[in-house]
Amino acid sequence: MRMYDILEKKADGGTLNKEEMEYFVRKLCADELPDYQAAALIMAIYTRGMSDTEAAQFTDVMAKSGDQVDLSGIRGIKVDKHSTGGIGDKTTLILGPLAAACGGTVAKMSGRGLGFTGGTIDKLESIPGFRTALSEEEFVRLVNENGFALTGQTANVAPADKKIYAMRDVTATVSSVPLIASSIMSKKLASGADKFLLDVKVGSGALMKTAEEAKRLARLMTAIGRENGRETEAVLTNMDRPLGKAVGNLLEVQEAVEVLKGEGPADLRELCLYLVSRMLVLGGLGTEEDCRKRAEKALADGSALAVFERFVICQGGDLDVIYRPEKAYRTPVCREIRAEKSGWFTVVSAEDIGKASVRLGAGRLAKEDAIDYTAGIYFRADVEEPVEKGEVLCRIYGADESRFDEAEMILSRALRVTEEEPEKKPLIEFIKL
Amino acid sequence: MRMYDILEKKADGGTLNKEEMEYFVRKLCADELPDYQAAALIMAIYTRGMSDTEAAQFTDVMAKSGDQVDLSGIRGIKVDKHSTGGIGDKTTLILGPLAAACGGTVAKMSGRGLGFTGGTIDKLESIPGFRTALSEEEFVRLVNENGFALTGQTANVAPADKKIYAMRDVTATVSSVPLIASSIMSKKLASGADKFLLDVKVGSGALMKTAEEAKRLARLMTAIGRENGRETEAVLTNMDRPLGKAVGNLLEVQEAVEVLKGEGPADLRELCLYLVSRMLVLGGLGTEEDCRKRAEKALADGSALAVFERFVICQGGDLDVIYRPEKAYRTPVCREIRAEKSGWFTVVSAEDIGKASVRLGAGRLAKEDAIDYTAGIYFRADVEEPVEKGEVLCRIYGADESRFDEAEMILSRALRVTEEEPEKKPLIEFIKL
Repeated sequence: MRMYDILEKKADGGTLNKEEMEYFVRKLCADELPDYQAAALIMAIYTRGMSDTEAAQFTDVMAKSGDQVDLSGIRGIKVDKHSTGGIGDKTTLILGPLAAACGGTVAKMSGRGLGFTGGTIDKLESIPGFRTALSEEEFVRLVNENGFALTGQTANVAPADKKIYAMRDVTATVSSVPLIASSIMSKKLASGADKFLLDVKVGSGALMKTAEEAKRLARLMTAIGRENGRETEAVLTNMDRPLGKAVGNLLEVQEAVEVLKGEGPADLRELCLYLVSRMLVLGGLGTEEDCRKRAEKALADGSALAVFERFVICQGGDLDVIYRPEKAYRTPVCREIRAEKSGWFTVVSAEDIGKASVRLGAGRLAKEDAIDYTAGIYFRADVEEPVEKGEVLCRIYGADESRFDEAEMILSRALRVTEEEPEKKPLIEFIKL
Repeated sequence: MRMYDILEKKADGGTLNKEEMEYFVRKLCADELPDYQAAALIMAIYTRGMSDTEAAQFTDVMAKSGDQVDLSGIRGIKVDKHSTGGIGDKTTLILGPLAAACGGTVAKMSGRGLGFTGGTIDKLESIPGFRTALSEEEFVRLVNENGFALTGQTANVAPADKKIYAMRDVTATVSSVPLIASSIMSKKLASGADKFLLDVKVGSGALMKTAEEAKRLARLMTAIGRENGRETEAVLTNMDRPLGKAVGNLLEVQEAVEVLKGEGPADLRELCLYLVSRMLVLGGLGTEEDCRKRAEKALADGSALAVFERFVICQGGDLDVIYRPEKAYRTPVCREIRAEKSGWFTVVSAEDIGKASVRLGAGRLAKEDAIDYTAGIYFRADVEEPVEKGEVLCRIYGADESRFDEAEMILSRALRVTEEEPEKKPLIEFIKL
């Protein structure tokens, strides 16, 4: 086999077979492929696309390029919920404990955040002492004991995907549906879960800006999961506005706790109840209606919160800091942003809200950047509802006040008070594929 | 300007503007561009294509990446005939002297051969002493004195094209019409001629195997010439069979001399009369009919041959060797290939005839290979005509007899005696674009 022939085939719109993909991935991971040939193939895939079966095989080959986690020691059907990333998306922190409280099994592997979307690992590390690098043995034990545990991805999950992603990043080939879908799903397949629920975010704060793109991605990821023998379903959810009211690591952990207490913002609570019901259905634990009722009860009676607390304690976290952050952190500086006129509180760009929070210190622009766990944005006013002139729209937090002006400038692009009522998009669109 | 944005634009099917191409070519020539970005852009151009105007601008930018020959010191309209390359194509050796004998001006820059097609420089270098590296000053003087001179391309003609070609060669992006057309035309634009006649070869011995592909290439090269202010026309000519009877450097020079004497094979003579008429028409020297008559006369009265002889002598060549090669070369070994049965003499693959001649030593597989100028193939029987069993089809020549078996094996694939009369394609198809 020669790389030249593989390139020629894809450049001319052909469909790569499994042997060709294995050859490419093997050479790539062994550093035996010139950069220009890897870049050329990725561009050919970007412009020519991939068939569903081709993408599914490519995903499988990438998943097998590194470690594959063995979760066979965990009892029950392991259902993994994956979000494509958005602003204020702390659902994982709620869904894990909530599903476990309803009898589900969630063995979650998460990543760090980069750019304008946050990562669950970063949110949890805002809890002092919290350990996100569990051994496989401890991870399995904790899931079996508590129904839920969460660990960081091992360094060697889908190394082919890491190399391909790095190349996409410098060749303007990031926004390809087959490449995005295979990248995400390769890590999912390697993580060892039995079934997948995909929360595909759509809107100004998501990777996919339009419903059409998001549906294409959802459809393909679902096909990839199924062709690789894992039951997979997808739901489209609204990311034209942040999810909940809190954006920033510790702020989001605190908001997750509110929801686990049966309180918290309606949109976040509703999405979590919907997603957990689908997770439980996938886990074979009843009808959607039954599962939802069980989940509502678990929020009301404190059983979900109890799982969360055990989860934090088992993984070494100082639970008390969630309730009394001043125990660990200097109280962050705060600035209020107020409405300059009366009207409708409108989010123009959720992505810019994410960027403002990164600017405050809540996220990273480069992998090695440090995070200010107390930094972030908290919405006081209800998005897409009327506000009065002078009313506080949101508060911005952070240890470094010198960043506030720039963050406020970014927010002034992201947020508007408008005369006309903004269009309200539905929170959830279930796609039956 | 950022390379990333240029890549993104082309990857998504956009049209690059001149500033973007200039940026790419400048960075490429300065070795400031990572290989993977160059490869990715070339693959994006390969798969997305280029508009005519885009290709014309790209060609201009590549032409300006290196030296541009100044032919303003030459009187008259300089018309350049360019062939896309074929087997036995020695027309340049005939057209230059013939056009000059009819009052035309031909300042020809040629290249060496690589792979299965020969190069005019190699053919002329089979004449001992012949100088193909003229200074610009001498080149201009000789064209003014004799109406025709020929020199090799300077090292720095369109360096961007050289770099892009090298990258295409390893990324399976050679066979792209916009990339082929811009590559050829960039060197033409830099060579300084006023008008172009393009002889686009089509068939089994050409780069373009089908009339459809050849027409696309011809159409685009013509558009590129015109958009860059050079009158350009194209003709499609048959390369399903070798042109003339001789394939190999000295053999081809000798056959060219036969045509210049008013003799030689009918197909070669006819093509040269047709092409020279179009060259003279482009040079403003009369109607096609008039020009053809003048050219026929120049072949008949020896005036074309006289220009050729002056041309060889002025550039230092030993004219006598053409008529008596034993003066300079050891007489090559010869083997006859005979018809195994009676039938029609059919060329299955003209490309394989070229490959057999390369195997004999007439051409190069790598740039540094030496050439046996006496090596080649001479057809005794008429192609596409009846032959008798035992009749000599062709003779193979070369200094190294150990190569004959392999060359004969390649020829046995290329040549057949068939029961049915082969399809005869027309020699010339003029495309009015």
